[in-house]
Amino acid sequence: MAVATSAPAPALDQGQRFASVRRLTETLASPLSPEDQTVQTMADVSPTKWHRAHTSWFFETFLLEPSFPGYRAFDPEYGYLFNSYYEAIGSRHPRAERGLLSRPGIAEIAAYRRHVDEAMAALIESLPLDPVPPAAGLVELGLHHEQQHQELLLMDIKHVLSRNPLQPGYQCPADGPRRDAQPSARPSRSNPSLGWLTHAGGLADVGAGAEGFAFDNERPRHVAHLEPFAIADRPVTCGDWLEFLADGGYERPECWLSDGWAAVRSGLIQAPLYWSDGHRGWELFTLRGPQPVDPAEPVCHVSYYEADAYAHWAGARLPTEVEWEAVLGPFVGGRDEIAYHPGPLTGDPPFVGAVWEWTASAYLPYPRFAPAPGAVGEYNGKFMVNQHVLRGGCCATPPGHLRPSYRNFFPPAARWPFTGLRLARNL
Amino acid sequence: MAVATSAPAPALDQGQRFASVRRLTETLASPLSPEDQTVQTMADVSPTKWHRAHTSWFFETFLLEPSFPGYRAFDPEYGYLFNSYYEAIGSRHPRAERGLLSRPGIAEIAAYRRHVDEAMAALIESLPLDPVPPAAGLVELGLHHEQQHQELLLMDIKHVLSRNPLQPGYQCPADGPRRDAQPSARPSRSNPSLGWLTHAGGLADVGAGAEGFAFDNERPRHVAHLEPFAIADRPVTCGDWLEFLADGGYERPECWLSDGWAAVRSGLIQAPLYWSDGHRGWELFTLRGPQPVDPAEPVCHVSYYEADAYAHWAGARLPTEVEWEAVLGPFVGGRDEIAYHPGPLTGDPPFVGAVWEWTASAYLPYPRFAPAPGAVGEYNGKFMVNQHVLRGGCCATPPGHLRPSYRNFFPPAARWPFTGLRLARNL
Amino acid sequence: MAVATSAPAPALDQGQRFASVRRLTETLASPLSPEDQTVQTMADVSPTKWHRAHTSWFFETFLLEPSFPGYRAFDPEYGYLFNSYYEAIGSRHPRAERGLLSRPGIAEIAAYRRHVDEAMAALIESLPLDPVPPAAGLVELGLHHEQQHQELLLMDIKHVLSRNPLQPGYQCPADGPRRDAQPSARPSRSNPSLGWLTHAGGLADVGAGAEGFAFDNERPRHVAHLEPFAIADRPVTCGDWLEFLADGGYERPECWLSDGWAAVRSGLIQAPLYWSDGHRGWELFTLRGPQPVDPAEPVCHVSYYEADAYAHWAGARLPTEVEWEAVLGPFVGGRDEIAYHPGPLTGDPPFVGAVWEWTASAYLPYPRFAPAPGAVGEYNGKFMVNQHVLRGGCCATPPGHLRPSYRNFFPPAARWPFTGLRLARNL
Amino acid sequence: MAVATSAPAPALDQGQRFASVRRLTETLASPLSPEDQTVQTMADVSPTKWHRAHTSWFFETFLLEPSFPGYRAFDPEYGYLFNSYYEAIGSRHPRAERGLLSRPGIAEIAAYRRHVDEAMAALIESLPLDPVPPAAGLVELGLHHEQQHQELLLMDIKHVLSRNPLQPGYQCPADGPRRDAQPSARPSRSNPSLGWLTHAGGLADVGAGAEGFAFDNERPRHVAHLEPFAIADRPVTCGDWLEFLADGGYERPECWLSDGWAAVRSGLIQAPLYWSDGHRGWELFTLRGPQPVDPAEPVCHVSYYEADAYAHWAGARLPTEVEWEAVLGPFVGGRDEIAYHPGPLTGDPPFVGAVWEWTASAYLPYPRFAPAPGAVGEYNGKFMVNQHVLRGGCCATPPGHLRPSYRNFFPPAARWPFTGLRLARNL
Repeated sequence: MAVATSAPAPALDQGQRFASVRRLTETLASPLSPEDQTVQTMADVSPTKWHRAHTSWFFETFLLEPSFPGYRAFDPEYGYLFNSYYEAIGSRHPRAERGLLSRPGIAEIAAYRRHVDEAMAALIESLPLDPVPPAAGLVELGLHHEQQHQELLLMDIKHVLSRNPLQPGYQCPADGPRRDAQPSARPSRSNPSLGWLTHAGGLADVGAGAEGFAFDNERPRHVAHLEPFAIADRPVTCGDWLEFLADGGYERPECWLSDGWAAVRSGLIQAPLYWSDGHRGWELFTLRGPQPVDPAEPVCHVSYYEADAYAHWAGARLPTEVEWEAVLGPFVGGRDEIAYHPGPLTGDPPFVGAVWEWTASAYLPYPRFAPAPGAVGEYNGKFMVNQHVLRGGCCATPPGHLRPSYRNFFPPAARWPFTGLRLARNL
Repeated sequence: MAVATSAPAPALDQGQRFASVRRLTETLASPLSPEDQTVQTMADVSPTKWHRAHTSWFFETFLLEPSFPGYRAFDPEYGYLFNSYYEAIGSRHPRAERGLLSRPGIAEIAAYRRHVDEAMAALIESLPLDPVPPAAGLVELGLHHEQQHQELLLMDIKHVLSRNPLQPGYQCPADGPRRDAQPSARPSRSNPSLGWLTHAGGLADVGAGAEGFAFDNERPRHVAHLEPFAIADRPVTCGDWLEFLADGGYERPECWLSDGWAAVRSGLIQAPLYWSDGHRGWELFTLRGPQPVDPAEPVCHVSYYEADAYAHWAGARLPTEVEWEAVLGPFVGGRDEIAYHPGPLTGDPPFVGAVWEWTASAYLPYPRFAPAPGAVGEYNGKFMVNQHVLRGGCCATPPGHLRPSYRNFFPPAARWPFTGLRLARNL
Repeated sequence: MAVATSAPAPALDQGQRFASVRRLTETLASPLSPEDQTVQTMADVSPTKWHRAHTSWFFETFLLEPSFPGYRAFDPEYGYLFNSYYEAIGSRHPRAERGLLSRPGIAEIAAYRRHVDEAMAALIESLPLDPVPPAAGLVELGLHHEQQHQELLLMDIKHVLSRNPLQPGYQCPADGPRRDAQPSARPSRSNPSLGWLTHAGGLADVGAGAEGFAFDNERPRHVAHLEPFAIADRPVTCGDWLEFLADGGYERPECWLSDGWAAVRSGLIQAPLYWSDGHRGWELFTLRGPQPVDPAEPVCHVSYYEADAYAHWAGARLPTEVEWEAVLGPFVGGRDEIAYHPGPLTGDPPFVGAVWEWTASAYLPYPRFAPAPGAVGEYNGKFMVNQHVLRGGCCATPPGHLRPSYRNFFPPAARWPFTGLRLARNL
Repeated sequence: MAVATSAPAPALDQGQRFASVRRLTETLASPLSPEDQTVQTMADVSPTKWHRAHTSWFFETFLLEPSFPGYRAFDPEYGYLFNSYYEAIGSRHPRAERGLLSRPGIAEIAAYRRHVDEAMAALIESLPLDPVPPAAGLVELGLHHEQQHQELLLMDIKHVLSRNPLQPGYQCPADGPRRDAQPSARPSRSNPSLGWLTHAGGLADVGAGAEGFAFDNERPRHVAHLEPFAIADRPVTCGDWLEFLADGGYERPECWLSDGWAAVRSGLIQAPLYWSDGHRGWELFTLRGPQPVDPAEPVCHVSYYEADAYAHWAGARLPTEVEWEAVLGPFVGGRDEIAYHPGPLTGDPPFVGAVWEWTASAYLPYPRFAPAPGAVGEYNGKFMVNQHVLRGGCCATPPGHLRPSYRNFFPPAARWPFTGLRLARNL
């Protein structure tokens, strides 16, 4: 993460934004029962109530305790329970055991959030407008952190619900009263056509400049050299993927990276996560329950291995993150509300923001990268190995969270995020 | 299980007993939040809400569906979710994944119980008194089954709460408003003295006779030959165990079975489960939260390996189940309410019923054993390998559930039940 | 183990027997290359060269070092490498890593054996005839120990060769020059008929008396009560097993113990170990390479789970070890050479000694059992949990090793020993 | 891999080089017993005899079978046993089970090598000089492949010997008769000083040009942009590492990548592989047996995680592979014989070639990378994920094998190769 180096928004706006971001977390959790909010289905997934508590712990730990005189921790044991991975802060409850905790229950966690919100409102109120204090930058960081967890909350609860044989739906807050999601007949939408955007190569600027908020891993802005290339004007769709499946894509070792093929051989992957081939044809599990695969939707919940294999099969390749940013950076962040599911591509290309797109780039530090000092320096830098960069944002990313330089990252085997892909090729 | 072969209690009584047993399950679950009732901490442990549902499924499956004309299942998917291990009934949700299910929530499960209870009340009402129909025997079996799950519910939720760093207590229904369990000073109670009961050997009758209810594994009554022996008049206490610990009991391979020593070497066992050695001395976790180890209490939550090692160290041995029954059978079942924790030994010996006592006997069929016909024949017989028999009942066993011939069984490594031991020696 | 309590054979005979037993080990190893003798295919299997060294270590540790003045250990590090499981002797190399050791090679181990043999010859020579010293009893124990390892050597190398895609044969010492074992046409032998031997029940004597050599686990002789029963006059054959397979034996959960069915479900067992169903029909791997399944041979390499399931399917049960000994004890030990494979049943019933036969009895101490004092007390007693008793000996048991009271034991999942079964039923 | 695109050496030279490279493999294996050549200590390690066979299989599969009319395979089953990972060739024996095979023994494998060598000599002899046929390029590839396995053979047998409690040495072919490697007193050599080589940044050419042999992953040559930086003139030494250890380097989470710290916490890494801290101080295991840690030697057998942590601790960073090649490329490949151990740094800087040096670069395709067509296209490309690039060669790399553009790669956790590191910093 990086403290903002120039003037952030004035205190009044920050207080409003704080309230708004915090409220959205509660809105997203509101359709979920206490039982729903407690379950953890794999080590990567956190319970909803843990997300609600951890984001509060972040403000408590990095702002209220060091910077708000007289603040009294809601519960001194929460530091152990809700520290995610900050070694400099101290020991913590094992990640894989978050679902073993029935206490604190969601009532206590709601109270914890109110406790932190009240203190934070006072703290933000007290911050001077000029010069902008470091605490204002940390508030900004905390809000972006909470937005990341809003997306994590949705992708995690999707996994939780998917592992239930009842295949229950999450009642999306915008949807009104819950209805049983009954897979309807296969949709008649067709696979949208694909166009190519070209780049002539040469030197390109990459990363975030010094102004405004950005995470530390997006900086510093620097120069990279590109060969001429083309990049698709839309992500790979479910329609494309059905062709890949029909052509035996998961049975062709020549298309796969060795580690990916090992995953195929072990039986772990045979189609995108959440896809199943039943008597009604291919269906996928969504936050609204099962539904038929729609050829016009971007394919979602594929691993890097699958993305790379598809590109290989298609006679193309994945773009690097530099290529991606150079052509598509300007189109990042247009969505103005959370959408819960990628949905079919509509409107005009280029289509960006429905699914996180795997790039060919390993997640590594930019030249002259320096993590932020102190414990928040653990935010990004220590994960710079064994991961690949994804670009563009997804349907579940909160509005206002993204930038052209935004770098998401996951291990190559990850499938439970909203992960898709886009093709590139050499010119 | 075994269908009662003689006249069970008249229908009126059975109906009342049905209501009473079912009510106790709900009472035991009542202090637990929705979150508490959802968590599973290891494959052996089931969530509270699962116990509530599974016991209802048992009545639905073995009584209502075959024997109650017009009965309509509460939810046809529950058969998959709440079948525990009956292969003849069909496939089922994996045991280790019970804690991954947030739905159905406890409200649905309460409704399920009411649905089953109403139908069962009508079914029991409709049963003829004479001749006693097979269904009445199945009701009896279902009630004993539910009582077993009442004990399981308590030992399972104890494990769940113990894995929480907050070390929360279960608010025992009889205890009134919850108080924070603060470990008090070490109790001054002393280790009660130990006496020996002798048996001259010769032929002994073992097992349940033909009259009255008993599980199938207690039958048929048969003859066994005994050598002269003595058996202790009380279980091994925490005071005894502190001596064992102080004498390096967990560091002496010569006392241990090979498989037990492997468990010690792997770091899995270093003291009874729930014991911890802190700055206030040895404490143990109870359903009321942490408390100091009391030398006057029976030691509890030890594996067969630990029980055998202790006996070896003490220059004694564990009794066989035949020896146990021959001397202590008449004292089984005296407790008239659930006690949640063994508590210190008080009153006069022989002391029986505070902890399940490991015997030297592997869990095997009695001569001429025959499982009940049909799916309920899976109740006991298919587990007759890799387990040892325990005798006597424990603090958490519901009143009215036990008999002198009662055989409990667990794998030798099990520690989360209320398991203790008693010494025997040759004469 | 038990020291012989009466006069063993005179020193001259013991010296000859020592030489003879030690020579047989070398004969059994002689067809095996250095590479063959080094490989370990699972934790239960030990490399041939380890068996050769460990049996020598036994004499070195329990006889030469304590009882032969001036003896100098061949290599002081061998104590760590070749101690199998004697905690009282000291730490040792992990069992599962025996196959990671290329050194010492077989030349060093041959030298080790010669070194021990020479010293042992002198020690035995020096022993007084009267009174018989304890050392003479330990020599006897060491010889029976080495005979056990001769059988283990054969069952272990069979496993090693079986895991090789080349399916190579062991050149059985009696067979002359090696020939490629080509599965021939299915043999025309038919499944021999089965008769029943009956026992009227009542009190029976069990176990070894005070005279002569026996392992400690066979003692003391004691009384047990039996119900009337019948026991088959031959083991279950491959012909029987083919019927079980044809009738879906491995697909009928109602026949299986729960732990056994879990093994079936996990895909671990689908037929006896070493059986495969190819285009020529069922074949099995033997020490002479693959050959067709012969209906007249006893079935071999089945687990306790499979044995119990077969008995269930056949409407019978497994005998207890007391039943087995009471009827078949007198027929134990007739074979006069190692046979490498069970082979078809020929001659007159009762047929005993082709395969170790699983009994329904868990491996537990006899009443008043006491292990031998000192480190050799670890020989048997510490394994008395999680195992079942097998009776009767097998084709690979060296001549002169068995007694009517002989108790072999393995965990219920073991299949690599020469394990079969025999039916019993109630009368 | 890449077929040479320009004229390789004339056939006569290639035949001589073939003989020479093949001979070196046998020389390296010659001190090893049949037992030594059979053992596999972890999935990553292959037995010596497997390396000897697999390199022969490579020539048989990619040259003799397609291009040498009338060639008859030595054994048709070897294709299954000795295919390493070529999916296009067919199925194969699992990598982790190579150590389970005692057959074929080393005598058969020596015969296999002779069989292949004779046919290859005739094939090479028959190749036209002009135009250079594709087969000549494949011979070249096969020789470089065999050279890679010569290094693997040494690093694998080092692991095998290290896991033996006897800590035996490999008798390095150049060393004369074997002596017991007795750790001597701590050497008095001091840690050599460190200098920095600088680069002004700007555009740099990276990778192999079109002429001469190179693996496909080194191509195509392309342009990259560099910031100004400095790179050390020597690798990090054991003396440096002793300081890191003394300063608690393995106890400071702030220095470590998250995945690396997880490895530390799990107890897997506490010092470089093969280091142990005994009563004589730090020692390390070498191919000549244990010896004291020498501060003047490059540190070796560290993972990427340890390399990155050290650089962090030292206030520096690892170089990228582009930086490494730009400054140190010209110094690659100077060694003229295999050295078996890095040894102390002597002579003048820059010191290159003692240990493979982890770079900050993930192993990814160069822009416009294209794998070779056909099965040999699996040589490199399918491993381009989850690995990091190492540069420079090591003591065990055969002479003549390296180029400035040479890219080695291993997963970040690998420690059994001869892996070290070098520092870089921004200017």
